[in-house]
Amino acid sequence: MHYELYYWPSIQGRGEYVRLALEAAEADYTDVARQHGRQGDGMSAMMELLDAGLPTPPFAPPFLKAGEQIIGQTANILLFLGPKLHLAPKDEAGRLWAHQLQLTVADFVTEIHDTHHPIASNLYYEDQKAEAAMRSEDFIRHRLPKFLGYFERVREQNPHKGGFMVGGQLSYVDLSIFQLIEGLRYAFPKAMARAEKKYPGLVEIRDRVAAHPPIARYLGSDRRIAFNQEGIFRHYLELDR
Amino acid sequence: MHYELYYWPSIQGRGEYVRLALEAAEADYTDVARQHGRQGDGMSAMMELLDAGLPTPPFAPPFLKAGEQIIGQTANILLFLGPKLHLAPKDEAGRLWAHQLQLTVADFVTEIHDTHHPIASNLYYEDQKAEAAMRSEDFIRHRLPKFLGYFERVREQNPHKGGFMVGGQLSYVDLSIFQLIEGLRYAFPKAMARAEKKYPGLVEIRDRVAAHPPIARYLGSDRRIAFNQEGIFRHYLELDR
Repeated sequence: MHYELYYWPSIQGRGEYVRLALEAAEADYTDVARQHGRQGDGMSAMMELLDAGLPTPPFAPPFLKAGEQIIGQTANILLFLGPKLHLAPKDEAGRLWAHQLQLTVADFVTEIHDTHHPIASNLYYEDQKAEAAMRSEDFIRHRLPKFLGYFERVREQNPHKGGFMVGGQLSYVDLSIFQLIEGLRYAFPKAMARAEKKYPGLVEIRDRVAAHPPIARYLGSDRRIAFNQEGIFRHYLELDR
Repeated sequence: MHYELYYWPSIQGRGEYVRLALEAAEADYTDVARQHGRQGDGMSAMMELLDAGLPTPPFAPPFLKAGEQIIGQTANILLFLGPKLHLAPKDEAGRLWAHQLQLTVADFVTEIHDTHHPIASNLYYEDQKAEAAMRSEDFIRHRLPKFLGYFERVREQNPHKGGFMVGGQLSYVDLSIFQLIEGLRYAFPKAMARAEKKYPGLVEIRDRVAAHPPIARYLGSDRRIAFNQEGIFRHYLELDR
């Protein structure tokens, strides 16, 4: 199966969780909005599909085209792809458990985004700096340890004891943990330098994912977009403590 | 199958989307934390389960116990229950589509919550009133129409043309639309009085769900907790415009 991923071409954002899964499994895919071809650029293809009056219109990117099926919402895309890419358990209970963790990742990602945009996504950061400072302080003190502590505990309580988040092998949840640790290190280097000592299991997952050969190749390629100040994870000196 | 729902006993909150599904299907279930019995109250049962060192620990309520399986995250619970309660399509593509919509409902619910708590959930509303006013203004102007407009369009573009959100019969997505309209009317009565004229299809779904006999009985019972100032939807005069 050839997959088409539709997502903003200049940021990692929420699309990155899907890119990591496709790359880890060496799937056959096109990152449509990043293509520049004779037919015009890939961005117009994405915007056209969003406005096409489909029977199942996505609310926003990312969305995935698999044959005639169009699937939106990051965690839903991974729910669909997981078993096909051998990155999730195949049984129903295992699939739901991996998905439950991914939904908690999604909640965390929303809170990470809101550290720099607590008032409105359509305002600039500069227009909500004071509020962002307050929200980031609460985030570093309360929310970051709550989420990372939870994920560390999930890994510890995994009966398989192989060091993965779900079952006894690599899943898309491990890939998402990798992305969270990388992103938090970029956005909050000081806070993370202190905090991550408490989450050695998650750091081990981060290292193991980074060393997974297809991911190592991806990270070294120009398909991996660098972190930047347009994405979910942003580094503002004044928000890090 | 007997289901046990675990959720905070004094609010509708995120648990209400699951309660509505169980009630609409007249399922056999216990709302555990609302039980007061000889064994101590249901809240301790919920807190014990959260701290029990389970192999699949939930991050937070709501979670559902179905036999030995414990399932967390509201949308994930509905993904599991949907086909069993005849409240979702049974085929894979239909299940994913209903779930995708429910995940967009969940995103909307988070934004609704943040209108009164834009800085921190562990601070009082009174400690973030100015920021809540700014966030609510943006919410009413931009986010409310974006989400409701999307859901209205989904209903219009549903090829089944029966007036439901998904396919040709009642699904948990319709129940969630009912809850959104009810909650928004409670929280933002002035803004909704103006806005809802633009979403006649959603209001029709709201009315149809309210008239569904098991839901009508539920709404008239003391199992339906009233909206209040502890839940997701809160009415603050100064945030409504």
